[in-house]
Amino acid sequence: MTVSPHLVLSMDTGVDDALALAYLIASGAHIIGVSATYGNVLQQQAARNTRTVLDLLGRADVPVADGARHPSWAPLFVADAGCARFHGRNGLADLRIGVSATPKERPGRVIASDAAGIVTLSAADVGALIRQGHAISVGGYPVGDPHAELPTIPEFFTRAGLATPQKLGFPDEDCSTMTDGARLIVDAARRYGDALTIVATGPLTDVDVALRADPAAVRRARIVFMGGALTQEGNCYDLVCETNVLQDPEAADRVLRAHADTTMIGLDVTHRCLLGPADVARWLAVADDDGSAGKPSRRHVAFLLASLANFSIRANRASDPIFAGGMPLHDPLAAAVALDPLLVTTFDLPMIVETRTGDGVGVRGRTIGDPRGAIDDATAAHVALGVDSAGFVRRFTDAIAGLLASLG
Amino acid sequence: MTVSPHLVLSMDTGVDDALALAYLIASGAHIIGVSATYGNVLQQQAARNTRTVLDLLGRADVPVADGARHPSWAPLFVADAGCARFHGRNGLADLRIGVSATPKERPGRVIASDAAGIVTLSAADVGALIRQGHAISVGGYPVGDPHAELPTIPEFFTRAGLATPQKLGFPDEDCSTMTDGARLIVDAARRYGDALTIVATGPLTDVDVALRADPAAVRRARIVFMGGALTQEGNCYDLVCETNVLQDPEAADRVLRAHADTTMIGLDVTHRCLLGPADVARWLAVADDDGSAGKPSRRHVAFLLASLANFSIRANRASDPIFAGGMPLHDPLAAAVALDPLLVTTFDLPMIVETRTGDGVGVRGRTIGDPRGAIDDATAAHVALGVDSAGFVRRFTDAIAGLLASLG
Repeated sequence: MTVSPHLVLSMDTGVDDALALAYLIASGAHIIGVSATYGNVLQQQAARNTRTVLDLLGRADVPVADGARHPSWAPLFVADAGCARFHGRNGLADLRIGVSATPKERPGRVIASDAAGIVTLSAADVGALIRQGHAISVGGYPVGDPHAELPTIPEFFTRAGLATPQKLGFPDEDCSTMTDGARLIVDAARRYGDALTIVATGPLTDVDVALRADPAAVRRARIVFMGGALTQEGNCYDLVCETNVLQDPEAADRVLRAHADTTMIGLDVTHRCLLGPADVARWLAVADDDGSAGKPSRRHVAFLLASLANFSIRANRASDPIFAGGMPLHDPLAAAVALDPLLVTTFDLPMIVETRTGDGVGVRGRTIGDPRGAIDDATAAHVALGVDSAGFVRRFTDAIAGLLASLG
Repeated sequence: MTVSPHLVLSMDTGVDDALALAYLIASGAHIIGVSATYGNVLQQQAARNTRTVLDLLGRADVPVADGARHPSWAPLFVADAGCARFHGRNGLADLRIGVSATPKERPGRVIASDAAGIVTLSAADVGALIRQGHAISVGGYPVGDPHAELPTIPEFFTRAGLATPQKLGFPDEDCSTMTDGARLIVDAARRYGDALTIVATGPLTDVDVALRADPAAVRRARIVFMGGALTQEGNCYDLVCETNVLQDPEAADRVLRAHADTTMIGLDVTHRCLLGPADVARWLAVADDDGSAGKPSRRHVAFLLASLANFSIRANRASDPIFAGGMPLHDPLAAAVALDPLLVTTFDLPMIVETRTGDGVGVRGRTIGDPRGAIDDATAAHVALGVDSAGFVRRFTDAIAGLLASLG
């Protein structure tokens, strides 16, 4: 594992993606560009959020490309209602920064995204699409699955007959589309070869598309993704799966089997790196510590980053006692490992993602060792299992504080 | 982790338990005694099988104690029909050695075991027991669960209303009983202290009872158990759980939380240690290689051990392509690690067993990292994740060959 100094990012920019981006900027990383993908929010919102954060941190020069608007198994995507609890409805803690990219939800209408753009669907539309065999992903769950929370159409689930396995089903058709974001990754791989690291903090849809578009080139890059869970419970309803991987299990499975140099930063390590209120308070102190009153930008940025973090700290605390200490630094840890692989200790293991649920097939979205790994020519992923959590949280907090101190 | 030279064993003696016992005898280990437990077979059959193997290998001096006849969550136990495929109906590849301990199955009757002894149940009996709130474990699955295979009463499952979650339920009552086998473990722990290793190759019911009976004494012993799966798929229907742990998830969970020095030898490593037909052929060659015709005992033992192994090799091959190379040496690996901890590389992690299935609770029988491990005073288990599989299979084969060569 070597450090590849040029980074291309794939982000579904919510709170922790934003903090990861801030960390990379603070660390002086060479960011070739960001591919904004669906995930925590719709792709359109993720692109907007990414630009907002880059602008805020004085890096409007970094290009943002439109990545996937839906997973490879469904032509339509709806952001999960649960995501709003952890990231805010706009993905940025409901702070009024930037401009909202997506139309407001109305009762009885679902805002979805397909490859072309935003689509507003009525309950009748949803029903018709399902009957025509098209899957709609709601944060990784197909409409009709009891976990697919469509709050704007609550009556949807009381309709008999829709939630049958046949109608839920994952279509055999591959709905993947080449996107500008995937092309950004391919172009970066062709240009930088093994000096490139792809950092993915959302679903792996675009990384998968890039790998399939030019396997020889993209396989040379190092891939670091935030996702999965191997030795700890997942963060989905079943406690088996992790949300980024559940969004597009087929894509994640293909990426893990693509014979690339892949590092998995899963809940095994991210759940141990908790950013607490005292850490965040340091950022505000730095902003106040310049001895002059003439630094609105520094204060503004400190306030916004602290507000993002505090929103997530509160949401995580309310969700589970294991987060009493703070918010897990999921995406920031993946970003940091991209720059410094030695931050984590890894276990090398050929990995797969199970794509079906049931007897003899496993649990859709589960990241697990490849049972055929010992007999096939599978490539081991570097699965992060150990982390100096206190050291990383300090390093992260210091980096953001340093970035703030550098602002005029 | 130190080697504790005195061993007390807890075994549900089927094929690989028998081979583990042979390995320990071949290695000259000091075996204080064996507690025979339900699991692969009924407890009564396991005790019989253990004595048969000890007799065969000239170690009838080793005491065999009657351990648990049912898991801690159910007062009755029925051996799973699937076990017979991998171990034979008698647990020893259907070889005619020793005397069958249990009555023969008849259509419409289930042979079960409760704390007192063997019980024969009709479908009406089973129905009545369930209505009275008593769980019956069929290889870890409660009667009424679609995976609880009661082949002698096939019509049982066509009856409406029995398989409701309420009636499946795991009773709040703790059905654990102190057994002679558990007492053997307690006595050994009191006598040998930290010079004792408890080797469990079946359900952890008796180890749990022993730990609860005298925590201070039993906690000083080192515990090595075959069971669980952390980084690989399980071997139960759901591909999440491993069978030994599924037999008594509550007991396994308590053992893992008991603050003992516990090593988990799970499918992570045992599925990579495959004993093939060529290895087994060596044992027969050794038996033929003495240059004289006057060695019936050596040939007899070689033939029986080879027959046990070949039965399992065939059964595993038929079950999954990953076992094309042979039978996984589950229990022998645990026995070998009891003697030599350096055979495996371990990952230290506080572990739990999930005991319920569903949203927010996990999967009953799943072995996984303790999510509260980072904030509580949990004790890490040593989870075996790496093994020199070729080296171990060679060592195991050599040890059995050496044992055979030593027989008169």
